Amino acid sequence: MVYKLASDLDLGPRLPIGMVGGGRGSFFAPYHRAALRLSGRWQLVAGVFSSERSRSLEAGAALGVAADRNYETVADLARAEAARSNGIRAACVVTPNHLHFDACKILMENGIGVICDKPLVNSLEEARELQRLAAQTGVFFGMTYTYCGYPMVREARQLVAEGAIGRVKFVYVEYLQEWLADKPENLGAKAGGWRTDPQKAGPTGTLGDVGTHAFNLAEFVSGAKVNQLSANLTTIVEGRALDDNDIVQLRFDAGFSGLLWATQAAPGHRNGLRIKVIGSTGSVEWRQEAPEALRIGELGQADRTLHRGQRIMTAAGATQTTLPAGNPEGYHEALAILYSDFADAIQAPGSIPLFPAPGLEEGARGVALCDVAIRSSSTNGSWLPLDNQDSH
Amino acid sequence: MVYKLASDLDLGPRLPIGMVGGGRGSFFAPYHRAALRLSGRWQLVAGVFSSERSRSLEAGAALGVAADRNYETVADLARAEAARSNGIRAACVVTPNHLHFDACKILMENGIGVICDKPLVNSLEEARELQRLAAQTGVFFGMTYTYCGYPMVREARQLVAEGAIGRVKFVYVEYLQEWLADKPENLGAKAGGWRTDPQKAGPTGTLGDVGTHAFNLAEFVSGAKVNQLSANLTTIVEGRALDDNDIVQLRFDAGFSGLLWATQAAPGHRNGLRIKVIGSTGSVEWRQEAPEALRIGELGQADRTLHRGQRIMTAAGATQTTLPAGNPEGYHEALAILYSDFADAIQAPGSIPLFPAPGLEEGARGVALCDVAIRSSSTNGSWLPLDNQDSH
Amino acid sequence: MVYKLASDLDLGPRLPIGMVGGGRGSFFAPYHRAALRLSGRWQLVAGVFSSERSRSLEAGAALGVAADRNYETVADLARAEAARSNGIRAACVVTPNHLHFDACKILMENGIGVICDKPLVNSLEEARELQRLAAQTGVFFGMTYTYCGYPMVREARQLVAEGAIGRVKFVYVEYLQEWLADKPENLGAKAGGWRTDPQKAGPTGTLGDVGTHAFNLAEFVSGAKVNQLSANLTTIVEGRALDDNDIVQLRFDAGFSGLLWATQAAPGHRNGLRIKVIGSTGSVEWRQEAPEALRIGELGQADRTLHRGQRIMTAAGATQTTLPAGNPEGYHEALAILYSDFADAIQAPGSIPLFPAPGLEEGARGVALCDVAIRSSSTNGSWLPLDNQDSH
Amino acid sequence: MVYKLASDLDLGPRLPIGMVGGGRGSFFAPYHRAALRLSGRWQLVAGVFSSERSRSLEAGAALGVAADRNYETVADLARAEAARSNGIRAACVVTPNHLHFDACKILMENGIGVICDKPLVNSLEEARELQRLAAQTGVFFGMTYTYCGYPMVREARQLVAEGAIGRVKFVYVEYLQEWLADKPENLGAKAGGWRTDPQKAGPTGTLGDVGTHAFNLAEFVSGAKVNQLSANLTTIVEGRALDDNDIVQLRFDAGFSGLLWATQAAPGHRNGLRIKVIGSTGSVEWRQEAPEALRIGELGQADRTLHRGQRIMTAAGATQTTLPAGNPEGYHEALAILYSDFADAIQAPGSIPLFPAPGLEEGARGVALCDVAIRSSSTNGSWLPLDNQDSH
Repeated sequence: MVYKLASDLDLGPRLPIGMVGGGRGSFFAPYHRAALRLSGRWQLVAGVFSSERSRSLEAGAALGVAADRNYETVADLARAEAARSNGIRAACVVTPNHLHFDACKILMENGIGVICDKPLVNSLEEARELQRLAAQTGVFFGMTYTYCGYPMVREARQLVAEGAIGRVKFVYVEYLQEWLADKPENLGAKAGGWRTDPQKAGPTGTLGDVGTHAFNLAEFVSGAKVNQLSANLTTIVEGRALDDNDIVQLRFDAGFSGLLWATQAAPGHRNGLRIKVIGSTGSVEWRQEAPEALRIGELGQADRTLHRGQRIMTAAGATQTTLPAGNPEGYHEALAILYSDFADAIQAPGSIPLFPAPGLEEGARGVALCDVAIRSSSTNGSWLPLDNQDSH
Repeated sequence: MVYKLASDLDLGPRLPIGMVGGGRGSFFAPYHRAALRLSGRWQLVAGVFSSERSRSLEAGAALGVAADRNYETVADLARAEAARSNGIRAACVVTPNHLHFDACKILMENGIGVICDKPLVNSLEEARELQRLAAQTGVFFGMTYTYCGYPMVREARQLVAEGAIGRVKFVYVEYLQEWLADKPENLGAKAGGWRTDPQKAGPTGTLGDVGTHAFNLAEFVSGAKVNQLSANLTTIVEGRALDDNDIVQLRFDAGFSGLLWATQAAPGHRNGLRIKVIGSTGSVEWRQEAPEALRIGELGQADRTLHRGQRIMTAAGATQTTLPAGNPEGYHEALAILYSDFADAIQAPGSIPLFPAPGLEEGARGVALCDVAIRSSSTNGSWLPLDNQDSH
Repeated sequence: MVYKLASDLDLGPRLPIGMVGGGRGSFFAPYHRAALRLSGRWQLVAGVFSSERSRSLEAGAALGVAADRNYETVADLARAEAARSNGIRAACVVTPNHLHFDACKILMENGIGVICDKPLVNSLEEARELQRLAAQTGVFFGMTYTYCGYPMVREARQLVAEGAIGRVKFVYVEYLQEWLADKPENLGAKAGGWRTDPQKAGPTGTLGDVGTHAFNLAEFVSGAKVNQLSANLTTIVEGRALDDNDIVQLRFDAGFSGLLWATQAAPGHRNGLRIKVIGSTGSVEWRQEAPEALRIGELGQADRTLHRGQRIMTAAGATQTTLPAGNPEGYHEALAILYSDFADAIQAPGSIPLFPAPGLEEGARGVALCDVAIRSSSTNGSWLPLDNQDSH
Repeated sequence: MVYKLASDLDLGPRLPIGMVGGGRGSFFAPYHRAALRLSGRWQLVAGVFSSERSRSLEAGAALGVAADRNYETVADLARAEAARSNGIRAACVVTPNHLHFDACKILMENGIGVICDKPLVNSLEEARELQRLAAQTGVFFGMTYTYCGYPMVREARQLVAEGAIGRVKFVYVEYLQEWLADKPENLGAKAGGWRTDPQKAGPTGTLGDVGTHAFNLAEFVSGAKVNQLSANLTTIVEGRALDDNDIVQLRFDAGFSGLLWATQAAPGHRNGLRIKVIGSTGSVEWRQEAPEALRIGELGQADRTLHRGQRIMTAAGATQTTLPAGNPEGYHEALAILYSDFADAIQAPGSIPLFPAPGLEEGARGVALCDVAIRSSSTNGSWLPLDNQDSH
């Protein structure tokens, strides 16, 4: 397995990939494509870049996608590519949230792997249907929970797994942003846009948009699954229809608890995702805005700051790093690592990776989180189970 | 009013003060005495430094207290000093928690001002009785919630009050320590000691010991009072009788909410008190372990780090600072500022200070916090009112 | 002009590029290729990846270079590609230092653009010869002084140019690494390798290897040129043949002074490049290991931390940023920005970019720095002129 | 020996002390008196607080000094106190620099210990005369180089001495301030005042004012003495008569080198004293503005941040700390530790302290630094010896 992005003499041939969404005006698709390029594992060869045909054609041309593989609909793409001997091995779904379900479904039905931006879908029913489809078809499904692609997030998970902080006792995760702090009327259609429109964003605002990332990170790093929660979803900016400041208390199947705080209305915070795992003998902390280091505290000891790329990283963690210590990596590399994971999984379906790439289960758990949290919050924070059946 | 500790040509004559507790082995009393000296406002002239007579005499001699003002009991001290023309104007109560009530009561009954270490007392009934006594007697009562004596905590309060971050929307406060992370049996009698013994520490562990500080800080900086809470008090170290990891959700009378997380079982954290107040246009953050600065964030602006002593501090905040910017102050100065506040209050009883010194109401609120939090936690985090009658 | 790497719908067709060096075992070539991919501006189509033919063929095959464009010698590559209608527009030279000169020369003589890793060459004579050749041929020449590709380095330059810190008064730059702190005999042939061998590395060790980067950064950010220096080159690890700890005092043509400290023998430092420019009213500081922010200080004001991607960046600086504020970029992006600059320069030769890409002059200045510093250091730090003729 | 300021039951009786200077308007005297109080070791009982009699009387009255021990001249004080059985054991000299010499001399001639603010005197001749006088009389002499009183500075010295970073290889020290960044005409008489007037401040500006602190710190922490230097003293603010930006290269008698950079014209810097000692296996760094921690780096290891008060401090370092880890100490404590050192030295003249308190030799070395640096700077940075005869 080759994770180091830069060991490019060993990456093997590039896998063909398609894209659904991502025409001009798409905010995140260019970053996905940059990560695809950086990964050195994929070649973008097909797509439906927009529901508007001219936009789709413009994007495809700019991206070097042959005109005959720039399709009018996702169904066209799925069927035609499935029929090609050199057809795409997967398609990225980077449309607005409410269009994810249909795109994923038709891709899966045609046996084409899916790499879906989060959140997966807007309702638990849709999530369950995709899970049934996956069970039937065995098609590959990846979710771009980008933050679990950071090397030092993986190092943190590995350190926790190896007992470096003793037994896990508590998990704190926060995700603080400012971009919805302004009044809805001051945010342009684009800036606030569909993310604050319940019809398009789904039943939650901040919880679905960033709370799911924080939740995924808490499970990824701690290595345990949440099985109960108590939520308090609130709106602190007047005139907003969806939650923008959420507190969720968590209980994990491994017996410890946690606390999640997510807000998108905190001026002075850009992409402030931070996790702290407290163990019986130590604690470990990671911040997305300074992603190259872990802060490790141990009872009575000097605080330690471990830097990505240092030789003292765990054997598993070391496989995830690219540049030498001291030469910063960032978000593009984290996303590229996920795309490398996805390529690995498709090329060697049965193999067990050092770090589990996020997939349909993680996507469904994000949807379930929102579903359960809404019910808990509307009943004064009652503790409700989060069904873990899908983890089997 | 003179707050700058070092403007010592203007401090006026020192007020006589007594001390209850603080003999050899007392952990915090020496810091109180260092703060008394640093303040330049008080002279320690009387005391009952220990219930053990020989220890009390040893301490008094070492501290320069005349033998005839080193008393056998608090009652003796209260009566004798009350009878002197140059008697003490107040007494510091620095005994273990469960002895606070009796000492405070007898001092108040004799008209002697009280400066009590927190928590005030162990039960709400006792707190209410002291409040009644105070209402009857009008005697001075100060609580050493040290953290609200830090200049930059006061600057934060002032900035919030002046609208520097717009309207307050949310308050987050955390208090993370490691000193009870070890198993109870590994903590010596002294280290874990009476603080983890319900008979002596009171009905809560971490919540009473440090959660009350965090709570007081949240009210002090935000300028509002909590009137509802939902608590989840847990114990994460096996074999401990009291809570050591607490989450308390807060609702303030001014309409906003808050979140408090306190733990004393977090390896790698020493005295990690941190508060972040989020407003509609900005946020402000303060950390006790780096107390000389405020981090101020504003929507879309560069983060600002304001340093104690800079000329751009608010007019009110600037009165609280001693050393020039860049020459660190710390905990001793914060406590000395409280002792200066108390001296001011005693010398000019009717005057309204720039910053309210913590008193009996704040002490009683800490006791009420514990009382209500226990009831909430034992009913699955139900939201319960925190009575604010005492604020009138 | 399109600098934002991710605006990939506007990048235009990819330019063909070749590579000299970069076979298996090359340390930095994979990062160059990752940056080429990330930039979206170039396609690697030709090369001489090793002087050992089998290695070269292996690398070319892995990188998707057609066998008939994988050449035996640089001369072959230069001539054949120059003769093709769709030949390469430039070649990256990433060989060991002592092979740069011959490769650059033959490429230039055949009219092929050069993108050369630093240091340019090992002697001033060679540098001057390349400069003469460039003047004759007009061929493009870029130097990968990566650090001036960081968006916030460019923002710093722009802020300085716009007078945000008043008039420049002093420049401090340090470059601290640990990787040569160990004794030479403990560093494997590879680790210490040719960089500490005077025959291959050139006449200086640390000064040429990292001091030149620091020097380039000082000139880039301050916008002025050094015209006098006083150097003290020392070796602090026993048994090393070349300097590993250097102090160079600088005088700039704009009238201010500076100080450069570079060492590769400082345990606990990985890639610690840091610059501070002090002006009459403010100062600005940037650290390579936290490259996403500038720390800006102004007389009597709160310190400001400006983050890459914030809307308050200068208009020029904003063009250099890719990901949204809060999503970290790093070294790969900085190098990709240089490769974008080089593509721009080749596509629109006469145009004046917002930020000057480093070229032959900057490369020659690095060689001159070493030459003059050696002479200064061997005469007790005498102040010697640094010839600026090449800047005309 | 008792260093912990707060172990106040063991401090013993207070020593009588006098003060020369320090009347209303004195900037630093109140901090000295606060440190005297905080130390718990001294009682201020005599003084000449101003050359203006009424000011002196006002200050003495405010400070509780009996009128008959408030003297008209230093000579009066010295003679009268020397004649008393309970006379002062030392006098603090906190006058402007140019008055130090006469005050020190007459105190010493009368056998009264001196605690002198730095710089000692303005000329090497005066320094040598005081040294002769000290050798003749054996009178105690302390210098308030405050920064070597910080517990973590002492911990750093101890770690270096114990070999925690291997053999010392290089010392970097910087002292950056902003308060003289403004034009002289904008600085009021008071702010810029006598410190920029060569007649009163002495022959150097920044070098004498803060460079001497940095120099002292470099010698204190490294445990070695400078015996050669090359200086470049410059003025970067127009219209200033004295240096405000200085570079001094150092060679120590132990065989390693160092670099000192001091400026008082750097906007955005308050009291930015920082030292980094690089050893063969590790490095240690301390910053005055965050004085509670040491950053320790070791080759290939995670960076360590050691906090004051942690149990893992060295045995010697641990004796210097007062408050528990996590409760910040600062400048007042550092100065109080020096005053404790001075009390120890006077009470037990022959004993060898764990950490050497700064005295006449250190004062004289500061004067010599200025003298030699001026000569070096005026001869293009020639390397000149710094006489170490006084260290015998």
